[in-house]
Amino acid sequence: MAFSPLLQNLVDALRCLPGVGPKSAQRMALHLLERDRSAALTLSGALVEAVEKIGECTECRTLSEDPVCEICSSEARDRGLLCVLESPVDMMAIEQTGGYNGLYFVLKGRLSPIDGIGPDALGIDKLLSKVINGSVEELILATNPTVEGEATSHYIAEQLSDHPVKISRIAHGVPVGGELEYVDGGTLAHALAGRRSLR
Amino acid sequence: MAFSPLLQNLVDALRCLPGVGPKSAQRMALHLLERDRSAALTLSGALVEAVEKIGECTECRTLSEDPVCEICSSEARDRGLLCVLESPVDMMAIEQTGGYNGLYFVLKGRLSPIDGIGPDALGIDKLLSKVINGSVEELILATNPTVEGEATSHYIAEQLSDHPVKISRIAHGVPVGGELEYVDGGTLAHALAGRRSLR
Repeated sequence: MAFSPLLQNLVDALRCLPGVGPKSAQRMALHLLERDRSAALTLSGALVEAVEKIGECTECRTLSEDPVCEICSSEARDRGLLCVLESPVDMMAIEQTGGYNGLYFVLKGRLSPIDGIGPDALGIDKLLSKVINGSVEELILATNPTVEGEATSHYIAEQLSDHPVKISRIAHGVPVGGELEYVDGGTLAHALAGRRSLR
Repeated sequence: MAFSPLLQNLVDALRCLPGVGPKSAQRMALHLLERDRSAALTLSGALVEAVEKIGECTECRTLSEDPVCEICSSEARDRGLLCVLESPVDMMAIEQTGGYNGLYFVLKGRLSPIDGIGPDALGIDKLLSKVINGSVEELILATNPTVEGEATSHYIAEQLSDHPVKISRIAHGVPVGGELEYVDGGTLAHALAGRRSLR
């Protein structure tokens, strides 16, 4: 015997969540039904509301229920800085450091010709016109340090080769608090090549 | 800045799932919104439907959308065997072994005076009357091998001391495929005490 059909449905539906396999989905379903039915209803409502109302910011393409997100519409942000990211999660990560006060542009992906993801899918036209026609003084390329992330940054920098905007790439190097012994060779090579003089 | 309010709602709601912390909830929410909105709606529907329609089987107390679950209503099961379990998950686990063909009774918990869980909350009256008035020949006590699980089994056996039904407890011992070296002392002691003669 399997679960009752409705319970099996719920278990299957929970498996759409990243990192949730059959056993965890089963545990989640039983937990919700046995101990926390009101939380299940709350979750159901939050899902529908988020899916129906959250779209993307027309300025930076991050997830937002308003046409222009809180950061893009804030008067307090430095409009001369524009940080290009692959995903809204990266934006949250940078915001949580509290060390950046500029604007963002979220590509929602990276160039990946093999998956059919080209510059159009990433809104790169929009990014370029923002840089060319806007008040951006420095474009900070903060795509992930992967092959595709690097290629995406390189492509964007290339497209702006004729435009006199300052373009930078976030630093690659040894993570703070890490030990050299455990850092991979590529990172160490970057850390050495990108060394900064102390005096 | 935090997430937009609706996104934050969704992240908070996802944290009701067991084993989901703030980072996983964030990853789940962004995954659903960025990549799989239809799955989010399916999940939302499955949650509501499960909460609204799944109740408990009037016979064995397991989770079921029918008044009597599939197992209790099956003609193919041996009505002389009744296995007492703490939770519907345990029932699934035993069903998945394929080695048991009797009926079940799900306590949905264990005796725990400290949390105010007594025999009433576990439906033990119902279990006893099923055993005394029904066709049960053997009652298999399969509560978890924890202090409370043992106490629950002991309590049930005690209540039936005047009734001539066969009562058994699942075996405790060394897990199949395990190595003695890594088995804890309590389990080893049980394994020795419960040894079976080979000839």
